[in-house]
Amino acid sequence: MNFCSNCGSADLSYQQPAGDTHQRHVCEACQTIHYRNPKVVTGCLPVWEDKVLLCRRAIEPAYGLWNVPSGYLENGESVRAGAKREVQEEALAEVRLDYLITLYDIERINQVYLQYVGHLIEGRFGVGEESLDAQLFTEENVPWDEIAFTSSEFTLRNYFHDRSIPRKLLHQASYPAVRS
Amino acid sequence: MNFCSNCGSADLSYQQPAGDTHQRHVCEACQTIHYRNPKVVTGCLPVWEDKVLLCRRAIEPAYGLWNVPSGYLENGESVRAGAKREVQEEALAEVRLDYLITLYDIERINQVYLQYVGHLIEGRFGVGEESLDAQLFTEENVPWDEIAFTSSEFTLRNYFHDRSIPRKLLHQASYPAVRS
Ligand SMILES: [Zn+2]
Ligand SMILES: [Zn+2]
Repeated sequence: MNFCSNCGSADLSYQQPAGDTHQRHVCEACQTIHYRNPKVVTGCLPVWEDKVLLCRRAIEPAYGLWNVPSGYLENGESVRAGAKREVQEEALAEVRLDYLITLYDIERINQVYLQYVGHLIEGRFGVGEESLDAQLFTEENVPWDEIAFTSSEFTLRNYFHDRSIPRKLLHQASYPAVRS
Repeated sequence: MNFCSNCGSADLSYQQPAGDTHQRHVCEACQTIHYRNPKVVTGCLPVWEDKVLLCRRAIEPAYGLWNVPSGYLENGESVRAGAKREVQEEALAEVRLDYLITLYDIERINQVYLQYVGHLIEGRFGVGEESLDAQLFTEENVPWDEIAFTSSEFTLRNYFHDRSIPRKLLHQASYPAVRS
């Protein structure tokens, strides 16, 4: 942040406002306090029979690697709606959300991942504009060495681990953990 | 947003960038795309014996009403760490987080509430600077007509409803629902 987005002044300081617990960018001209907060990345692992659907990224970062369909939550959108939208955009597919499987914090880059397990409707999917490819994988066939992000690996490992038990658990961890 | 926070230009447009799915504020001078995303509000309902701890707000909005200790997640912080920090700030108390009980979206104001149930260590608490008061309430004594936010009511109702069953469920809803 170089300029105040309210008044355009370049006279910004970084200080702890009175009564606040954290340092903020404060505009010395108009006194606006500019808060910065983590972003939510919402996603869903689509499941069809004994397989899961992954997308191969056509964009940076992690171009060419496989990922659980996920992306930034948008203003005006619920976490669940965002998860379904990401599956639609990346895999042209419709899911019925089943349960929230992971809450994964990456404090270093101010991200909170919330990923669901969902039922892939009729097993139908395609390849969205942000994807090079989309494929269904059994546990044995998952390209473990080519997974885009630790958040996706965390969701995948927990999904397969829990598949044999009836209870649906939420797993929580912070980067770089991949098992809760 | 009146000025570009990168270059200070007032020449901002609101448009859908190429390859994007949403409209954004875009600076015509430096081409910076200014994304805006929902904020996470993290909190925890502290439990001691058959009672829950609520705080009476000393700040707007909802000044004077009772609330589950909650606040904006900060950069560099995990959702769980933020929940514990909020209890410390508002009730000068320490909790051991038990489970995530609610994910509550308020799309209209771009907020995602994530609230936990936690064990109030040794039943000890005080009154933080953002609180007028803090008190332990049994289910019968909760001031239901003076609860600050529907997110808190959603958490409280689900906590008491589920208390008699062994399974710890995550409840999800969007404003203004108070039951999943
Ligand atoms: Zn200013
Ligand atoms: Zn600019």
